[in-house]
Amino acid sequence: MNKNLKITIIGAGSSYTPELIEGLIKRNNELPIGELWLVDIEDGAEKVSIIGDLTRRMLAKNNMSHIDVHVTLDRRLALEGADFVCSQFRAGCLEGRIRDERISLKYGMIGQETNGLGGFANACRTIPIALEIAKEMEELCPEAWLLNFTNPSGMVTEAILKHSKVKAVGLCNVPVIMQKGIAKMLDANEEDFILQVAGLNHFIWARQVLHEGRDKLQEVVEEILSGNDPLVPQNIPKFKWPEELLRNMGMIPCAYLRYYYTSEDIMGQELEEASGEGTRGEVVKAMENRLFDIYRNPELNEKPKELEKRGGQYYSEAACELMSSIFNDKRTIMHVNTRNNGAIEGLPNDCTVEVSSMITKSGPLPLNVAPFPKDTLRLIQVLKEFESLTVEAAITGDRNTAHRALILNPLVTTGTVLETALNETIEANLDYMPQFR
Amino acid sequence: MNKNLKITIIGAGSSYTPELIEGLIKRNNELPIGELWLVDIEDGAEKVSIIGDLTRRMLAKNNMSHIDVHVTLDRRLALEGADFVCSQFRAGCLEGRIRDERISLKYGMIGQETNGLGGFANACRTIPIALEIAKEMEELCPEAWLLNFTNPSGMVTEAILKHSKVKAVGLCNVPVIMQKGIAKMLDANEEDFILQVAGLNHFIWARQVLHEGRDKLQEVVEEILSGNDPLVPQNIPKFKWPEELLRNMGMIPCAYLRYYYTSEDIMGQELEEASGEGTRGEVVKAMENRLFDIYRNPELNEKPKELEKRGGQYYSEAACELMSSIFNDKRTIMHVNTRNNGAIEGLPNDCTVEVSSMITKSGPLPLNVAPFPKDTLRLIQVLKEFESLTVEAAITGDRNTAHRALILNPLVTTGTVLETALNETIEANLDYMPQFR
Amino acid sequence: MNKNLKITIIGAGSSYTPELIEGLIKRNNELPIGELWLVDIEDGAEKVSIIGDLTRRMLAKNNMSHIDVHVTLDRRLALEGADFVCSQFRAGCLEGRIRDERISLKYGMIGQETNGLGGFANACRTIPIALEIAKEMEELCPEAWLLNFTNPSGMVTEAILKHSKVKAVGLCNVPVIMQKGIAKMLDANEEDFILQVAGLNHFIWARQVLHEGRDKLQEVVEEILSGNDPLVPQNIPKFKWPEELLRNMGMIPCAYLRYYYTSEDIMGQELEEASGEGTRGEVVKAMENRLFDIYRNPELNEKPKELEKRGGQYYSEAACELMSSIFNDKRTIMHVNTRNNGAIEGLPNDCTVEVSSMITKSGPLPLNVAPFPKDTLRLIQVLKEFESLTVEAAITGDRNTAHRALILNPLVTTGTVLETALNETIEANLDYMPQFR
Amino acid sequence: MNKNLKITIIGAGSSYTPELIEGLIKRNNELPIGELWLVDIEDGAEKVSIIGDLTRRMLAKNNMSHIDVHVTLDRRLALEGADFVCSQFRAGCLEGRIRDERISLKYGMIGQETNGLGGFANACRTIPIALEIAKEMEELCPEAWLLNFTNPSGMVTEAILKHSKVKAVGLCNVPVIMQKGIAKMLDANEEDFILQVAGLNHFIWARQVLHEGRDKLQEVVEEILSGNDPLVPQNIPKFKWPEELLRNMGMIPCAYLRYYYTSEDIMGQELEEASGEGTRGEVVKAMENRLFDIYRNPELNEKPKELEKRGGQYYSEAACELMSSIFNDKRTIMHVNTRNNGAIEGLPNDCTVEVSSMITKSGPLPLNVAPFPKDTLRLIQVLKEFESLTVEAAITGDRNTAHRALILNPLVTTGTVLETALNETIEANLDYMPQFR
Repeated sequence: MNKNLKITIIGAGSSYTPELIEGLIKRNNELPIGELWLVDIEDGAEKVSIIGDLTRRMLAKNNMSHIDVHVTLDRRLALEGADFVCSQFRAGCLEGRIRDERISLKYGMIGQETNGLGGFANACRTIPIALEIAKEMEELCPEAWLLNFTNPSGMVTEAILKHSKVKAVGLCNVPVIMQKGIAKMLDANEEDFILQVAGLNHFIWARQVLHEGRDKLQEVVEEILSGNDPLVPQNIPKFKWPEELLRNMGMIPCAYLRYYYTSEDIMGQELEEASGEGTRGEVVKAMENRLFDIYRNPELNEKPKELEKRGGQYYSEAACELMSSIFNDKRTIMHVNTRNNGAIEGLPNDCTVEVSSMITKSGPLPLNVAPFPKDTLRLIQVLKEFESLTVEAAITGDRNTAHRALILNPLVTTGTVLETALNETIEANLDYMPQFR
Repeated sequence: MNKNLKITIIGAGSSYTPELIEGLIKRNNELPIGELWLVDIEDGAEKVSIIGDLTRRMLAKNNMSHIDVHVTLDRRLALEGADFVCSQFRAGCLEGRIRDERISLKYGMIGQETNGLGGFANACRTIPIALEIAKEMEELCPEAWLLNFTNPSGMVTEAILKHSKVKAVGLCNVPVIMQKGIAKMLDANEEDFILQVAGLNHFIWARQVLHEGRDKLQEVVEEILSGNDPLVPQNIPKFKWPEELLRNMGMIPCAYLRYYYTSEDIMGQELEEASGEGTRGEVVKAMENRLFDIYRNPELNEKPKELEKRGGQYYSEAACELMSSIFNDKRTIMHVNTRNNGAIEGLPNDCTVEVSSMITKSGPLPLNVAPFPKDTLRLIQVLKEFESLTVEAAITGDRNTAHRALILNPLVTTGTVLETALNETIEANLDYMPQFR
Repeated sequence: MNKNLKITIIGAGSSYTPELIEGLIKRNNELPIGELWLVDIEDGAEKVSIIGDLTRRMLAKNNMSHIDVHVTLDRRLALEGADFVCSQFRAGCLEGRIRDERISLKYGMIGQETNGLGGFANACRTIPIALEIAKEMEELCPEAWLLNFTNPSGMVTEAILKHSKVKAVGLCNVPVIMQKGIAKMLDANEEDFILQVAGLNHFIWARQVLHEGRDKLQEVVEEILSGNDPLVPQNIPKFKWPEELLRNMGMIPCAYLRYYYTSEDIMGQELEEASGEGTRGEVVKAMENRLFDIYRNPELNEKPKELEKRGGQYYSEAACELMSSIFNDKRTIMHVNTRNNGAIEGLPNDCTVEVSSMITKSGPLPLNVAPFPKDTLRLIQVLKEFESLTVEAAITGDRNTAHRALILNPLVTTGTVLETALNETIEANLDYMPQFR
Repeated sequence: MNKNLKITIIGAGSSYTPELIEGLIKRNNELPIGELWLVDIEDGAEKVSIIGDLTRRMLAKNNMSHIDVHVTLDRRLALEGADFVCSQFRAGCLEGRIRDERISLKYGMIGQETNGLGGFANACRTIPIALEIAKEMEELCPEAWLLNFTNPSGMVTEAILKHSKVKAVGLCNVPVIMQKGIAKMLDANEEDFILQVAGLNHFIWARQVLHEGRDKLQEVVEEILSGNDPLVPQNIPKFKWPEELLRNMGMIPCAYLRYYYTSEDIMGQELEEASGEGTRGEVVKAMENRLFDIYRNPELNEKPKELEKRGGQYYSEAACELMSSIFNDKRTIMHVNTRNNGAIEGLPNDCTVEVSSMITKSGPLPLNVAPFPKDTLRLIQVLKEFESLTVEAAITGDRNTAHRALILNPLVTTGTVLETALNETIEANLDYMPQFR
């Protein structure tokens, strides 16, 4: 382990970054880091500088000051010769997210950053930049692994895997939260059971919970039905699944699936929030302001407790574990976005899916996924087609492709309202979506 | 042609029947009818008797009084030895339809007799009776052809084809209207071009319009876009398709597809109607009352003009042409609901689809359907899965299956609202859906 | 019908041509021919001239001398403005066929012009020329229909449909013979029943025999089993199918399928013939010499009886009927090679299959094919993959692709013997297969 | 690890058993064995008794005499409460194998115990007994794992997985030999690279050789082409792959695939052997006699060197490693026969495939298999269909199913010769195949 790893974080001005730094510190013995490059754009210059200082203080506290921390706006410099690149930027900032939420709600649709009309808008802002980064990586660090947790993670990863040669893996905290929640339910160590999930990003089902030689999935289901549901991320309000539906599903839907199984209830909730404390984006923005006030404190030299409420917990945990698993050929089971290649029957080979995989030095090897029940498969196929058409529209800027994509999405209402909402979305985002000009 | 055909009409008390009689009269030279059996249930006794008298007057006017007309409530008697059985009953009468519409609207969903929650309810009332009839046919007239135009025609036909050995064909007027409309646009005789449609009942697309050695589909599309759209049935209000969507589709969606492509506009329209002249069911009911007043007139000896506004025009035309095509091995191209058997790639073999077929003495031989564009296929697959699960729920009375079916339907809103609406639907219809008790 | 059709026959020096002329004469009232162009290459100059003279005498006898008959070696001239192009050339002449047969037999494999190693060699000689013709048609007569009965008809048609825009249909006499044989068995007119076949060229099964409202396939099977088998072409020796296999198949295999179901018996037969009267190619060559002696006779003004023994009977019948069906939009059912496009489930959309189709002015509309039993499907899939790889090898000249193709063919023996036989085949044909240089 | 495992070996009179015992001894620290049950049938009574004595001596030498060794002919007693059941019996003994080989060769076909006509015969003798054992396990040790290495391992495992509830895994030494050979080529420890294989038993390809973060498959291919091929089992003579074929395959075929890629060469080799030292079965029989002479020696207390030449080396190694991996949830990658369930795209879910899998306490979790190149897939599909029809014929005793199975097999010649060979095979084996009476 004589290598001095160069790790580059794009969008490092994010309030999440301290968790990522903490994860790297924890893995001091596993990952021989030499350089840490924190990159952001002009608009994020102040934030990334605050993060840079905090990072140095955190490293110092842990006697890891030998790691060179670079704060820069020069992405090419940061990418050159990198071993791992973490991508966690937000195109259009939180303002973009809030705008997506508000436009969706205005037209009677659920507003969310990875689903529906909001997810579409986010993808169209983000994918062109993600592909730009990928092209730079092909040139400047062709052997590097790209860990994408920029949302919408599934579509962004699909765009990169379809349109570049970069070795990219998409990550999400949703399956990590399921895994940790189930561990608690089973009173087991995470390594002692195998959770297998499959589906698309924010659209996964647990398929197996193997523990002590048995599949305990149904026991977990009953536990959830009994009211004890630790599988829901902090940023998603508690809720109840339709009882018989869940009991007979033979799978455990991830928390985001309530957007599809119980759309009207979510809609109500969102409308209530929007006229109360604000949309999720607005809440997060306020939270972020508070977090940066904390980060500025020159006494602070560890990840503050407050970050946990932020919603993305375990993202960085997952990213660090993934880097270590690749670097050390650990063969752990992780849940990642990767090329389908036959893993989920009924989806194209070249699309991206979120599946439990064995992580090796050569990247993720997905576990085989037992064929889905037909009705669930149909949902997945429709959503994936929405995603793939969205990726296409994000690249070509073709409005009809965008329209065709959105028609397929169950969270989208069709008709004149959709045409109007789509036009408004594009016009409002035109600076970030020049491909639609 | 020495056979004296026995034709049996189930639900003959329908206001449509005079059109059917007219169709049979027109085909006097093609169909050697001996007996005509008009069957209905107790509740329809008066109406079927009025229809019986009118039928006799119509036949007399055309010198066809040699045909024995039987009016009966004894279905077994009417089925025994029949050659053709036309099924056009409405389980739960128009009251059932109106109830479906009102419940759907109350919960913010589109209310319609073949789609969404209303279509589900209609299927659950109808399928058990349809299967009862099929079982009687297996016993009493195993060689007879069953022409089903009882709605929801696609699901009812699927139930029969999956669960009996009866030779059944499902019919609908939607493709007939497309065919006649396109003939007008092309200024062509219907026999001089070939329209190929494919999809599911009330969910079809025209795939080819072959005329004079060329596919004129795109010309028809442009004509529709120019505002001249004779493809819409009388009972569906005029509307405009999203322009670029239609222009680039490479197919012509049937009028019912606006429920999916422009759902919000339909919803608005329905709400307006519901608080105005009444739901479609209510309008039809009023119309039917007026029609029966006319039918009662002992001077009337032909199909009255007023019937054309009823909405189902050409249904009976299609039925008579189908009987003649089968009887005479005419090999005409008709658009029918039949077992998929590979016709539409991506759907199960044993499901029922609506496809253009060559009609022979052995029944319909579907034309091969070129694979659908993937996004359209996904819609069809989802709808078919909704239909197949609905058929299953209609037979088993399993509420969770019903719930799973409805979750898939794009016209249905999920969540607490769906659970409530489903329960209310079942409770309100319990007399007609004992399987759910 | 005011058009003066221009019909072009490529490879018109074939001994079959008089049958084609007879077919056109018979359809005098259906096809308003203005010009008939008989084309051949330098090597066939004498033969095509003999055929030209005979053609003029046949037309004269039938008072059709108004048709201009052109005999030419200038293919471009002949193609310019053509309405129908019949392609029936033989690349490498009968000498090539004989060579294929002898090489195959020498290495212990069945030698045949459309199957196995011989079919491969024939494809590699023929496809480059067929594509050259197609390119000329794109330029000189882009609206013309190409009727291909140049062997191997399935692969040649696939090459044209995949690599040009020409409207091509492949023809074969095998299904015609089945149709005529079954008509005799049923004592029915050909128009009174519907035979549906499906598969690949020389690799088809009858799937339905619809007559008087019933499928009489099993009755035909029993008749064949009883020893009365008129389904075998004249050029294929009589033989018996394995009894239980045929009885339980639910389909009727075409005569060429005995190459696969009873390969060893065929091998024995071929070896016997090869050391007796000669291979099929050698027999045909002798027959052809005799036929041309007859054709030369200036008294002859009709198709001579002797031609019927030649083996390709009904080819030309099929070609003429196809031209008339297209020209007159007759909507007859014919059995043609056309783009799969979903017709046979389990095969690629862009491959070519042989299926019963309704013939319209816009060309063939295949009937839907019920999914094949899985074991039969596997055979078809393997053969089609052999064909598609052969087409690829014929175009690219890649020996490894050729090897991969042949490994899949059940009539081919693998190993050193195959490598040697393939090399010998390529070397011996190098003048006709420059792509392999 | 307080459990006293009961391990039962069926067909323990096999000459392989000492290797299995050695494997168990090596894993003394991993597998807490309490009882070892050696079962055989009457005919094997002497041999199993010799093996029992040798086993006790081997255990004693290793200070493991605390393990109770039971030698018995009472299978039910041996199965009762077992934790692991190893099945390695040979129905019809080596005499059956030799008969298969001789009948095949007599009719000009390759004779082999898992492929072609010989594999078919072996399956028909073996599967009824295997299912009998599975039924007993369902009753007597429903939680036990069945490790099947009884040949033909793929078909026997498929029969068990389709027709019983037993937790069965099929094993083979072929992938183990590939793994060890590749380790040597790469000069790597077996744990340091990941070999992924996929296909059917004796019909697999290596798909990936992941080492140090790269796929070194092509390097291994070049090494094989250079003449250094340690991937061939001892019982298969050395040979050369067609060079360009192997170089461009993108996969590494297992040694048994030469039966398909180079069938004629194998045929020559088999004929030479048959008229020289004898068929493989005859050679093995002589070897076995010699081995039992050695085993009888009361001084012998370890696996003798001579066993290695026997051909099945590493079988037992694989079996022991599998037991330990299951018992200890080791999550090693092993190559096993298991239910397809979507692993290989294009094969039925319920069939059995041989795929690299992560071994857990709940059994094997197959790794996802990237879709096969189409030509290879076609071969696999054909072979699998042969296997599945053979399993069906072995259970039903239907001769036509048997015939249909064999027609698909590339190693089988069709026609009269096949009908005769099949009849002779059944007649000669009638005592072991009463289902065909």
